[in-house]
Amino acid sequence: MSCPVLELTQQLIKRPSLSPDDSGCQALMIARLRAIGFTIEPMNFGATLNFWAWRGEGKTLAFAGHTDVVPEGNAGSWSNPPFEPALRDGMLYGRGAADMKGSLAAMIVAAERFVAQHPHHQGRLAFLITSDEEATGADGTIKVVETLMARNERLDYCLVGEPSSHLRVGDIVKNGRRGSLTATLTVHGTQGHVAYPHLADNPVHRAMAALNELVATTWDEGNAFFPPTTMQIANIHAGTGSNNVIPGELVVQFNFRFSTELTEAGIRSRVEAMMARHGLRYHIDWWLSGRPFITPPGELVDAVTNAVRHYQDLTPRLETTGGTSDGRFIARMGAQVVELGPVNATIHKVNECVSAADLQLLSRMYQRIMEQLVL
Amino acid sequence: MSCPVLELTQQLIKRPSLSPDDSGCQALMIARLRAIGFTIEPMNFGATLNFWAWRGEGKTLAFAGHTDVVPEGNAGSWSNPPFEPALRDGMLYGRGAADMKGSLAAMIVAAERFVAQHPHHQGRLAFLITSDEEATGADGTIKVVETLMARNERLDYCLVGEPSSHLRVGDIVKNGRRGSLTATLTVHGTQGHVAYPHLADNPVHRAMAALNELVATTWDEGNAFFPPTTMQIANIHAGTGSNNVIPGELVVQFNFRFSTELTEAGIRSRVEAMMARHGLRYHIDWWLSGRPFITPPGELVDAVTNAVRHYQDLTPRLETTGGTSDGRFIARMGAQVVELGPVNATIHKVNECVSAADLQLLSRMYQRIMEQLVL
Repeated sequence: MSCPVLELTQQLIKRPSLSPDDSGCQALMIARLRAIGFTIEPMNFGATLNFWAWRGEGKTLAFAGHTDVVPEGNAGSWSNPPFEPALRDGMLYGRGAADMKGSLAAMIVAAERFVAQHPHHQGRLAFLITSDEEATGADGTIKVVETLMARNERLDYCLVGEPSSHLRVGDIVKNGRRGSLTATLTVHGTQGHVAYPHLADNPVHRAMAALNELVATTWDEGNAFFPPTTMQIANIHAGTGSNNVIPGELVVQFNFRFSTELTEAGIRSRVEAMMARHGLRYHIDWWLSGRPFITPPGELVDAVTNAVRHYQDLTPRLETTGGTSDGRFIARMGAQVVELGPVNATIHKVNECVSAADLQLLSRMYQRIMEQLVL
Repeated sequence: MSCPVLELTQQLIKRPSLSPDDSGCQALMIARLRAIGFTIEPMNFGATLNFWAWRGEGKTLAFAGHTDVVPEGNAGSWSNPPFEPALRDGMLYGRGAADMKGSLAAMIVAAERFVAQHPHHQGRLAFLITSDEEATGADGTIKVVETLMARNERLDYCLVGEPSSHLRVGDIVKNGRRGSLTATLTVHGTQGHVAYPHLADNPVHRAMAALNELVATTWDEGNAFFPPTTMQIANIHAGTGSNNVIPGELVVQFNFRFSTELTEAGIRSRVEAMMARHGLRYHIDWWLSGRPFITPPGELVDAVTNAVRHYQDLTPRLETTGGTSDGRFIARMGAQVVELGPVNATIHKVNECVSAADLQLLSRMYQRIMEQLVL
């Protein structure tokens, strides 16, 4: 069996592109796109390779993705070497098979077929590819987006190839993502000896009622697109290690995954008011890693839904749960953004794999999305 | 000026006896005690040197103390080398000057004077000396006490030379100590991704209400001899360091300083009931480092009070606060135990020092206590 999607996926897996190293993946993609008439614009920043490619003009549908992969972990635990793709029982194994070299290959082959059938398509077909989505991403998609926005490039629709599916390809598409906001709270006290608590001020004791309230708070009820906002304490530390020293400082780090019902400023003011109401001496450092975004039903969601229905006997469920993705940067351009990719059960794990048949289906779905939006 | 107490203190300071190294201190003390008719019984365990010495027979007054000292810290911060005693403006400087080589010298000289004046004293005068009180103490006073109890030695009164005084020598004597009990609580949860809290079980969130109750609890009201029991969280830790991982475990270490109103078993059952009531999956390791003990007013407290009043224009205040001392082991023998020593303002610090005049007074007080109890 010769399948161009599988062949390209295998060629990409063989290039061990640990973030932000691209290892030649983009050169391969660029050669294929250039051959079908795409204009290529490299946008490299630091050690991160990015490119923006387009063909045609008018309303723009961009396919977005990343060539980098997470480390293989314990290579000895893999049934095949992680960068030597192996096909067994219909599954293609290798680091990046599902996240997301399979999607990249499906996009390229879909574009090739689409252009072959519709060489004079209306609208603009584009690619936005980075080699750093899995690490900091600081020089990745966000920089490309900033560059495009600075010159008023328009982007109407964006299909991100992240592995969105749960059991069957297309069963879930992401039409938005929650925001992510992290607080690092330092509560100040006065260190001392446990035998003399009246001469000290235990920050753990002081903070306890406030933290109890923080944990018990309902932040919102969610809305039609988002589940309720969640808050989780990820780290809490105080103490010298000795059992007879009252610590001088308590550090608590907690993260919000928040819906469009809330804003960064709103969360910050509620938390700070809580700390102040409990009379704490404290300091909070805030870090916003992503604002929430949503693509309500419309042309892109319809096109994706139709494409999935055409090839699978199911209607995709729209979800906004899970982590963040580069979609959050692209949404800033005002584009409709949807994520559709393969089953994510094995991503970031040993023996990452993807169904070969799913990749072929996915490529057809991508092609059908092109046909609905740039024809 | 030649003062035997100061001279002996200086000789002891010159021996850098970092726990459990005795560095020849006990040999010096033993030679002096043997010269005045004491029988010496070394009771060394492991690297720890201890001795038990006695003279006469009958009701027994033991003087207890330790030859070891805590490390000097940053020696360059001292105004004189820490193991080269220096007398400036009436203060004797050196590591161990106040805790408690000055007391040891005062005891020895007091015994010499007492024996010189009362060679045929009634009762038994004794010494219980260890070289490990400041470190683990595992082979120190507790082992000597166990040995003495195993052969049914009787100890009626014990004067511990720990630096009990606040502003003037004798202003405070300790007639008991609180107990010390440490709990290391592990709360079990299930690790996960902060974006999927429904798939995890955050032990920090689970524990918060229980910890809030722990911190807000009044354990007792104290009694005539003891202040109310205190509980302090000394260490709290959870988290992988990442802001997107829900921790799998929370570890909290807290310490009770408890009065004779409570028992170890009573505290344990209250804490465990609290954790169970909040539905926690948890494990607690308990470590009892000392039971509370009290010496109510009686012969020893009277003798000490009279001795202080005789040399200072003040009545000592009886206290049970502060850390623990080897007195807690000796109290198990059924003895009355009181601590009287120099001002403790500089103990364990750089430039530890003691008033030369106070050491002379202290030696006279010790002698007067002997005269009241073994004459």
